Amino acid sequence: MTWDVLNVIGTMAFAISGAIIAMEEDYDLLGVLILGLATAFGGGIIRNILIDVPMSTLWEQDILIKVTVLIIALIFFIPEGWIHFTKGWLNFFDAVGLSTFAIQGALYAYSAGHSLTAIIMAAVMTGTGGGIVRDLLAGRKPTVLRYDIYAAWAIIAGIFIGTGITSKPWELYLLCGILI
Amino acid sequence: MTWDVLNVIGTMAFAISGAIIAMEEDYDLLGVLILGLATAFGGGIIRNILIDVPMSTLWEQDILIKVTVLIIALIFFIPEGWIHFTKGWLNFFDAVGLSTFAIQGALYAYSAGHSLTAIIMAAVMTGTGGGIVRDLLAGRKPTVLRYDIYAAWAIIAGIFIGTGITSKPWELYLLCGILI
Amino acid sequence: MTWDVLNVIGTMAFAISGAIIAMEEDYDLLGVLILGLATAFGGGIIRNILIDVPMSTLWEQDILIKVTVLIIALIFFIPEGWIHFTKGWLNFFDAVGLSTFAIQGALYAYSAGHSLTAIIMAAVMTGTGGGIVRDLLAGRKPTVLRYDIYAAWAIIAGIFIGTGITSKPWELYLLCGILI
Repeated sequence: MTWDVLNVIGTMAFAISGAIIAMEEDYDLLGVLILGLATAFGGGIIRNILIDVPMSTLWEQDILIKVTVLIIALIFFIPEGWIHFTKGWLNFFDAVGLSTFAIQGALYAYSAGHSLTAIIMAAVMTGTGGGIVRDLLAGRKPTVLRYDIYAAWAIIAGIFIGTGITSKPWELYLLCGILI
Repeated sequence: MTWDVLNVIGTMAFAISGAIIAMEEDYDLLGVLILGLATAFGGGIIRNILIDVPMSTLWEQDILIKVTVLIIALIFFIPEGWIHFTKGWLNFFDAVGLSTFAIQGALYAYSAGHSLTAIIMAAVMTGTGGGIVRDLLAGRKPTVLRYDIYAAWAIIAGIFIGTGITSKPWELYLLCGILI
Repeated sequence: MTWDVLNVIGTMAFAISGAIIAMEEDYDLLGVLILGLATAFGGGIIRNILIDVPMSTLWEQDILIKVTVLIIALIFFIPEGWIHFTKGWLNFFDAVGLSTFAIQGALYAYSAGHSLTAIIMAAVMTGTGGGIVRDLLAGRKPTVLRYDIYAAWAIIAGIFIGTGITSKPWELYLLCGILI
């Protein structure tokens, strides 16, 4: 349950951040859709690979795919005047995507009984995957390497989960909220 | 059977498109070989990951690998006068690779009983993987994001297969031919 | 045993080469750590995907992760005067990482009974993965495409292992040493 909620939030957040980047690059509707979907599900695919989630689960998420397409199209058709607003929100959605996926990676490594170091690395690599896919596709240098703050967030998520401070669902949501 | 034919055609087409791009970048024989093979099998690897084909099948394709190497070397040694000819054909081979792999992705999602949305997304992501690998390795922005027509082809492949309009082998080949 | 030794050497070598590139790009400590770890374990992840090693083995390598983090931090804090020294060593560590991973890829394909062509391709793709991840993340064109020597090394590793010339552990280490 917590997994699904984190998955939906993270996927949406990465979709929006991909769409914003695509619009900054002046892509057409289809380009914005592709980059949005690639960021959302590319990040999820990297996460699936890293923590051994079977890929078929990706294609089962019919409703999530539909809602993601709708949201990206909505962002594309937002009136001009709003764009300065959404641009400022890029960091916010990026942070939401990163922290939700980082928590999933950390939880996976934690439940498999690995060390704190491994849990932190799982959090960082799972969390940053989506943003890296987006930046590479848009021909940019990965944000996670330019701004330390992103990696720092993922490391904190790893430490909190790895040390067992955070383990109940509501604590995870709170952690997620604080990280953002 | 249909799968194997599509696999061979798609792999070859991506190999040729990778080799052409590598020659545009003035690489040596080995560079052209590597980029050609990386595009051909990199696209196949992404397809395998996305639709759960075991990776060992990749290394079993001895004859396909050999023929691919030969074809790339042949393209490298084509006389100067022909090059303007092959350059114009880049889009053709790119389209062949995209549509064959897109059909494989769509068929996989269709046979697993997923929704039309999921089938279309499987077609797009499986089809565009090869071109994205090629463009990233060559340091270019992915073509699929710059030219909507590629994504549109993959979407059409997804719709035709997803709605059950196309299901018999000869219909799939025809679809493949029309898309190109 | 030979596998583990090659894995440790290759991971360390890629970590160092990633850290050197990150310092050339003037990243902070965290950026250097991320790029070093991404190169080291990203190359390992690509190898795992290509030769069907389960990903959970990645997170079990607690000591290797810790030592890698320490070594990258050490490189970051090396006094200014040493940097021209380490820069010259980039090619060395790159070659170490490439040849150890290439040998692993070739051994895998060899033990699965594939043809020489498949073994050579397994060597090249497994060996070059780490460097490609590093170069893409740093926004550079992959070194393996610019300098033929890298691919040539991996091909030689594939030929030696594929033809059965090299099969005992000490022969593999020697091969590894000669390639470097």
